[in-house]
Amino acid sequence: MKKLINNPATVVDESLAGFQAAHGDLVVVSTDPVYVRRREPNRDKVAVISGGGSGHEPLHSGYVGYGMLDAACPGNVFTSPTPDQVDAAARAVAGSPGVLLLVKNYTGDVLNFTMAADLLESDMPVKTVVIDDDVAVRDSTFTAGRRGVGLTVLMEKLCGAAAERGDDLDAVAAVGELVKANGRSMGLALTSCTVPAAGGPTFDLGPDDIELGVGIHGEPGRERCPMRPADELVDTLFKAVADDIPFASGDDCIVMVNGLGGTPLMELYLCYNRLVELCRQRGFTIARSLVGNYITALEMQGLSLTMLRATPGLLSLWDAPVHTPALRWGL
Amino acid sequence: MKKLINNPATVVDESLAGFQAAHGDLVVVSTDPVYVRRREPNRDKVAVISGGGSGHEPLHSGYVGYGMLDAACPGNVFTSPTPDQVDAAARAVAGSPGVLLLVKNYTGDVLNFTMAADLLESDMPVKTVVIDDDVAVRDSTFTAGRRGVGLTVLMEKLCGAAAERGDDLDAVAAVGELVKANGRSMGLALTSCTVPAAGGPTFDLGPDDIELGVGIHGEPGRERCPMRPADELVDTLFKAVADDIPFASGDDCIVMVNGLGGTPLMELYLCYNRLVELCRQRGFTIARSLVGNYITALEMQGLSLTMLRATPGLLSLWDAPVHTPALRWGL
Repeated sequence: MKKLINNPATVVDESLAGFQAAHGDLVVVSTDPVYVRRREPNRDKVAVISGGGSGHEPLHSGYVGYGMLDAACPGNVFTSPTPDQVDAAARAVAGSPGVLLLVKNYTGDVLNFTMAADLLESDMPVKTVVIDDDVAVRDSTFTAGRRGVGLTVLMEKLCGAAAERGDDLDAVAAVGELVKANGRSMGLALTSCTVPAAGGPTFDLGPDDIELGVGIHGEPGRERCPMRPADELVDTLFKAVADDIPFASGDDCIVMVNGLGGTPLMELYLCYNRLVELCRQRGFTIARSLVGNYITALEMQGLSLTMLRATPGLLSLWDAPVHTPALRWGL
Repeated sequence: MKKLINNPATVVDESLAGFQAAHGDLVVVSTDPVYVRRREPNRDKVAVISGGGSGHEPLHSGYVGYGMLDAACPGNVFTSPTPDQVDAAARAVAGSPGVLLLVKNYTGDVLNFTMAADLLESDMPVKTVVIDDDVAVRDSTFTAGRRGVGLTVLMEKLCGAAAERGDDLDAVAAVGELVKANGRSMGLALTSCTVPAAGGPTFDLGPDDIELGVGIHGEPGRERCPMRPADELVDTLFKAVADDIPFASGDDCIVMVNGLGGTPLMELYLCYNRLVELCRQRGFTIARSLVGNYITALEMQGLSLTMLRATPGLLSLWDAPVHTPALRWGL
């Protein structure tokens, strides 16, 4: 294992210390328990909080700031944060309008965020949206039902924008449920990744094979198959994703072509080029897009595709100003 | 070779088509000859143009837009653009205030940009700044003198801001020379990268070895040595870089911890954390910073460190609004 680390046990803490140093104008990193919060919380609006295992950067800490998350709770690499992290983060940023918890659908995350919600409920209104956008498989290594993956990025932006404009908790949660109902994702891996504490690859993949439908922790997908040209792979992801959303020709969509950490940006744009053609053929209008590394699996090579059917209301929330370490516009 | 491509011969064209589709609000991609220009050129200001081989994305095309580059000329992967690309790009965006060419110091780039300057000089004022910030080695595979690497990102931002505020050609070039005189970089690789047309790794590296001082095309560095903890590697890069700049204790600096394409963001922040401590020990103030993938070598794992001694004037140019696909603030 070659990694730019000092000690597998302190990777997350040292990385968060660097993150604090780089973005101290936007965030404060608390260390006991660990959470990342906006430097200047606004307790007069709904607080939006997410979190999950580390190793998916810039998710979630990179999305803390104006117009997106109020706090993020990073666990150890690929490990759920504990309830006390979520509890402390919420108390540090939320006020009487309450808190919305955005949770990726993994057993540990759902359990720990639910326990946190129980702790918080006596003191503030709490709602939870569980993100389960990965169409690749039902039930997986760490999951009952579908996994939560790329849609999380769009969810955090859109719910964050709704909270920032002053929507109440029910309304912000309704935005989350709308996004959940209309967004789907699927990914594929060309290589595994290596968790620092494990010291070796999460899975083995032959020199000419890919994992189609891989999870963001390296969970198995639909099949392991030989490498194919990029256009064919994008076709496969697109069909799986688009067939699962209640799209109709003429619908607007927000799409994300996401690198899993080790994929050249050149290749992501090449894949986006194919996606544009596929959307044109089906009559979907790409109204907004992201191409880059937004939710990763350490240094994994591969990509994921996320598509969200977008109402004019969602597009307006998408366009609202955002100022976080990893996503910024209008400010 | 597993890559998300269709055909090694068409990688750059297909990627640029996707880039155009994703960022058509900001840029126009011309295909014959190939260049990327701002969608709405302003011929009343100095035009700033750069370019070089593809494979370093988001450099250079990702930096075309308001407050940065007016045009970028992408060559094939790791291959210089031709003089006619630069000539056409300049004629598409420049007016009577003239054009500044920002050229990374590689033999092919310098030759071809010089030929382009010769073509342009009868019709507009032209100046060139050659970037040679890599302290790792003098003279390398493709270079006489030092290589041009990470400082290019800072150079494009700072010269672009000077041009945007209306500085004349001499003044914008003077900003470039100031940046060149006060900026240095060095990188290291944990893995090689694979050029699509080559089909295999550019160099071989043992499972426990690193290339210290690697170039952004995989050129050899100072030494091949066993992997060491991240802090020790950052110490080595810092010493090499900081000793080469005329820093004095108390100086402000702009720093970049740059991933080479396949490095988890978590590791880059961890390395930044060490850099903060080293700067503190030497009495340098980190006034501004970038941590992320800004100038890459395809999917190479590794990082580079760039440091620029910054005057108040440079910091003011740094803070000026910028709106490009890959760097955006204030707009």
